[in-house]
Amino acid sequence: MKKIRAGVIGASGYAGAELVRLLWMHPEVELAGINSKSYLGQKIADLYPSFYQIIDLPFEEEDSVIAKSDVVFASLPHGLSEPLAKKCDALGKVFIDLGADFRLDNEADYQEWYHLQYQEPQLHKKAVYGLPELFREDIKTASIIGNPGCYPTSIALALAPLMKLDIIHEQHLIIDSKSGTTGSGKGLSDSTHFPRLNESFAPYKIGAHRHTPEIEQTLGKLCGKDVSISFTPHLLPINRGIVSTIYADATDEIHVEELYAQYVKFYANEPFVRVLPLGKTADLKYMKYTNYCDVSLHMDERNQRIILVSAIDNMVKGAGGQAIQNMNIRFGYPETMGLSMVPASF
Amino acid sequence: MKKIRAGVIGASGYAGAELVRLLWMHPEVELAGINSKSYLGQKIADLYPSFYQIIDLPFEEEDSVIAKSDVVFASLPHGLSEPLAKKCDALGKVFIDLGADFRLDNEADYQEWYHLQYQEPQLHKKAVYGLPELFREDIKTASIIGNPGCYPTSIALALAPLMKLDIIHEQHLIIDSKSGTTGSGKGLSDSTHFPRLNESFAPYKIGAHRHTPEIEQTLGKLCGKDVSISFTPHLLPINRGIVSTIYADATDEIHVEELYAQYVKFYANEPFVRVLPLGKTADLKYMKYTNYCDVSLHMDERNQRIILVSAIDNMVKGAGGQAIQNMNIRFGYPETMGLSMVPASF
Amino acid sequence: MKKIRAGVIGASGYAGAELVRLLWMHPEVELAGINSKSYLGQKIADLYPSFYQIIDLPFEEEDSVIAKSDVVFASLPHGLSEPLAKKCDALGKVFIDLGADFRLDNEADYQEWYHLQYQEPQLHKKAVYGLPELFREDIKTASIIGNPGCYPTSIALALAPLMKLDIIHEQHLIIDSKSGTTGSGKGLSDSTHFPRLNESFAPYKIGAHRHTPEIEQTLGKLCGKDVSISFTPHLLPINRGIVSTIYADATDEIHVEELYAQYVKFYANEPFVRVLPLGKTADLKYMKYTNYCDVSLHMDERNQRIILVSAIDNMVKGAGGQAIQNMNIRFGYPETMGLSMVPASF
Amino acid sequence: MKKIRAGVIGASGYAGAELVRLLWMHPEVELAGINSKSYLGQKIADLYPSFYQIIDLPFEEEDSVIAKSDVVFASLPHGLSEPLAKKCDALGKVFIDLGADFRLDNEADYQEWYHLQYQEPQLHKKAVYGLPELFREDIKTASIIGNPGCYPTSIALALAPLMKLDIIHEQHLIIDSKSGTTGSGKGLSDSTHFPRLNESFAPYKIGAHRHTPEIEQTLGKLCGKDVSISFTPHLLPINRGIVSTIYADATDEIHVEELYAQYVKFYANEPFVRVLPLGKTADLKYMKYTNYCDVSLHMDERNQRIILVSAIDNMVKGAGGQAIQNMNIRFGYPETMGLSMVPASF
Repeated sequence: MKKIRAGVIGASGYAGAELVRLLWMHPEVELAGINSKSYLGQKIADLYPSFYQIIDLPFEEEDSVIAKSDVVFASLPHGLSEPLAKKCDALGKVFIDLGADFRLDNEADYQEWYHLQYQEPQLHKKAVYGLPELFREDIKTASIIGNPGCYPTSIALALAPLMKLDIIHEQHLIIDSKSGTTGSGKGLSDSTHFPRLNESFAPYKIGAHRHTPEIEQTLGKLCGKDVSISFTPHLLPINRGIVSTIYADATDEIHVEELYAQYVKFYANEPFVRVLPLGKTADLKYMKYTNYCDVSLHMDERNQRIILVSAIDNMVKGAGGQAIQNMNIRFGYPETMGLSMVPASF
Repeated sequence: MKKIRAGVIGASGYAGAELVRLLWMHPEVELAGINSKSYLGQKIADLYPSFYQIIDLPFEEEDSVIAKSDVVFASLPHGLSEPLAKKCDALGKVFIDLGADFRLDNEADYQEWYHLQYQEPQLHKKAVYGLPELFREDIKTASIIGNPGCYPTSIALALAPLMKLDIIHEQHLIIDSKSGTTGSGKGLSDSTHFPRLNESFAPYKIGAHRHTPEIEQTLGKLCGKDVSISFTPHLLPINRGIVSTIYADATDEIHVEELYAQYVKFYANEPFVRVLPLGKTADLKYMKYTNYCDVSLHMDERNQRIILVSAIDNMVKGAGGQAIQNMNIRFGYPETMGLSMVPASF
Repeated sequence: MKKIRAGVIGASGYAGAELVRLLWMHPEVELAGINSKSYLGQKIADLYPSFYQIIDLPFEEEDSVIAKSDVVFASLPHGLSEPLAKKCDALGKVFIDLGADFRLDNEADYQEWYHLQYQEPQLHKKAVYGLPELFREDIKTASIIGNPGCYPTSIALALAPLMKLDIIHEQHLIIDSKSGTTGSGKGLSDSTHFPRLNESFAPYKIGAHRHTPEIEQTLGKLCGKDVSISFTPHLLPINRGIVSTIYADATDEIHVEELYAQYVKFYANEPFVRVLPLGKTADLKYMKYTNYCDVSLHMDERNQRIILVSAIDNMVKGAGGQAIQNMNIRFGYPETMGLSMVPASF
Repeated sequence: MKKIRAGVIGASGYAGAELVRLLWMHPEVELAGINSKSYLGQKIADLYPSFYQIIDLPFEEEDSVIAKSDVVFASLPHGLSEPLAKKCDALGKVFIDLGADFRLDNEADYQEWYHLQYQEPQLHKKAVYGLPELFREDIKTASIIGNPGCYPTSIALALAPLMKLDIIHEQHLIIDSKSGTTGSGKGLSDSTHFPRLNESFAPYKIGAHRHTPEIEQTLGKLCGKDVSISFTPHLLPINRGIVSTIYADATDEIHVEELYAQYVKFYANEPFVRVLPLGKTADLKYMKYTNYCDVSLHMDERNQRIILVSAIDNMVKGAGGQAIQNMNIRFGYPETMGLSMVPASF
């Protein structure tokens, strides 16, 4: 069987570079080419010294990369993936977008939160939301896959079984998320200047983060109702990982053991979701550099409130790893291929 | 005017040592003596090398310290402050407890959360809850002052003006707090072993932290109703500081500007509470090693939910600094005396 | 071809657990069993939650593990590997020791630095020093392999080409090393308590670290003369990685370009040693969780002093990864098998 | 007695802002005005939120600040302090420069390392090098004071007693320094981007750092001979502090106890230099946010090599604190005034 030829557009950013790293280790992928507009002609190892003497590829023009690829991954600012998807679609290439352009079903949401319009509405009809644990069947045949955002991945996986049970007030979800700094990307900013960020901690974009409609969309699909969340992201002075602490009010009395049994059942065959034993708590420490998502369940018995905690590596399950998981599904490879790293605990 | 002679019982732990450090810099305090059972006879600078050639005091017997002091501070595990308070009370010494024994009005709460009973109920009638911004008048004449917990301080100061306005569902408060590791103290544990904690993040004691009844007690006093909270503390891989992110559902439409005006008014004369301008967010970076508490107000307009963020240094406003603020009030000194350090931003 | 059955004695410590993690990912290894005296009967995933649902092994008795293994790795305090090696030797098992018992040729050095005597001198004659880049041929047939210490690995690889050239004062080497905290292991101590270590930095065991004779032994073999070093390790407030900054005085005028050419040639066929281009500097950031060793060359022209900088992951090339590299060599597998992870840059 | 009116030119950078913070806490200083070209008209608390509601000053024009000041501090890129010094000198203001323009006696050194020429040679004759422990008498009457660099401060204080004893090979000093990131300043760069720097460690500017001639100049004055050093700075992933590990070869047999006695004597009356007891090691943890410099002495007995370790807060004793110490000396105040903070150990 021939290897899949994969190309990465926007490979100079963090999500792109992580994807390159992971694709390089995939046994059935040939990294056909990588692209960066800003660093055209430079070697990726000049930007990311860890690749030195391992990944000896220069950044090429976009069209050159597409031409050599069976699957094209893109990691670009929003608004730039649509024209690229069009090009790939016309050439019969599978397109997996790590950006935000193909995540929202409702153009009005995109307009409201991203302040742009769809240029190619017909493409969006072809696109599927690439969260494998929830939409695996759609992904198998899709030509355009919108890879989920990092926060939405951590939140949807934590809530999915609960949303399906119809036992909470779905208009009253509070989601308090905390992310490492790689989520902010390679670009320099005052807020990620080391002496500023180190030994600091604070929320940001309170009630105003662009992942909000994406989260509500997925949760709404799961429960079949409108969902409303308060979503507060925070920036952690660490490199990688997201923890989401989620508060859901039960409509009736709930026994956490029963809920736990439902979770275990729901994720029984999922290789990348680990429902932790009752009494344990998800910690972003334990899946760094891997594609796992840990979920733990807790009850605030005094308030009949379910508290869920989930943890992922924002760069892997929250970006490049999940994109490869989608590729594996789409191309008929075992879903864990190239993603079976054992996480370290220290 | 003669200096206040201050003694610290339990000075070998983090809260005690921080108190020693701050007392040493207070212009009207003479540090009369310090005590530690475990390190009796040793110099405090042997435990805390930063004090070398500055604070040249050995740990002494408890009684010796009390005898030399006008005010006795205690930083001990719960259950141990009560007999000490009795002793001080009999000798006419002011007693300021940094532990949990004198924080709860209702013995039933103490029994439920700390699994101990009051041995000296009459002492608890003399005790006041030492949160100066809310109970200043009581503190002025108290002989026993229960210094608030670190989390409760950050939460009560954030919510106080709101609780008094009677515009939220006080049975539905969600409080997601994050603390640096000094809050866990000097004692070694797997959870604070560097390679374990560094680059990690997770909640702990979900719905089960002992500060819960203390928080509910203060909030209940403020609004005159029963309050119920979900309180989730998290451990941050940093040294100092607490951020509390608080979610309160408004009963009616709220304009954040009006609420902000109320906050500014409420704290107008408070030297240590800074209500940040709308649009700014409290960050524990900006009051480290000082007694400030920053509070910022935010609205999730889509859900008519008020989101408050507060930040303190858990070791100062959350422990030793607040204890000195209480001492200043009790002894008639300017409230900011010895506490007017300017915080650094880096 | 049948997989190698590998057993790990002392698998509950950091080096042992890292070895378990890496062995699990090796395509031609079956992890036959793991041992820990302290945690006998417990699951390793209870100690290291990152292994949950992946490595479902309990700690077993030593003899049980040995019986099932073709190769036995040991990660034990010094003095405990010798009897184990004897047992393995008698049973015809290959023994790879991550401890210090089989690193020193000269028993007098062992006595001086480890305060113990050899119980089984004949075993030491069978043992080889498992630094593959320097002693590969010996490793191929050895039944006992002493895996090098973490510091000595970083130092020997940095200096090897230089030592062979006979152009420095080999009695005047200064080695200033800095290590992450995983090197201190799983055991709790004041010095690795998070609030103590975080935002701190200092040397330790100045001129008295046990790796000193091991370093001098290897360097001496390379140049054929007695070597004397000043070795100062420091503890970095990070998790993984060692940087060694090495100062060597040239006996004659040296051109760094020529020296660089010698280094490139020396390591031309080594898959795990990367000689960085002149102008670049080795940084422990760029080989975390992998088996690479980066080396960079610098000249202090004003003093005709060669400055070498090397960087490794102390847990991989400095422990478990190198042990697997030795296993691969010993069992005739490609040397990089199971070790071809691409390091991340963030 | 009237307070000293102090002005700060270049107050928007880290060194300037730290100076502002410290001057604000000085009981006999009135902060007359602060300047920043880039942030003219803005409030300093907008840049440094920790100052909110405490230091309510806008950045003003340079001349306006000078006019209001008795002493003018400058924290500017090299080359910009000279014209400012000229202006202050003409107006009879004391000028304390935190930059590099007035540190080097020999213009040739300045030309070689800073690539600029002196425009006002006569000013340099008036300037003194403001390292109080070594040049206190000169400072008392100087009108222009060149505040030492951070690395040179940590190194000169560690070596001063030794240099005066004439017992080492002064042509063979190796200095391996490690600094926190505030030393790199407020400006954004790839090397201080959080995800890049966090969990990293490496040297930089090996054998080429501009502090080299300044260090050699001071050491040379102390021993009366030419001194040659290899100086290698490293960047630590922490905020504040410098540790210098210094290797000096003894010319004769040395007893560390005797050397220690010399050090204790040398610094007996210095309030800010703490010679640690033999057996202890200087750690940058223990003087953060204060003006102390800790020095520890060690012997590598096997090589008759003296190893010195010193630690300072680069922003305080390495910049703003030392500048205030110089001001205190120059204006006849007690040297510790405004600088008597007790450092924390956590």
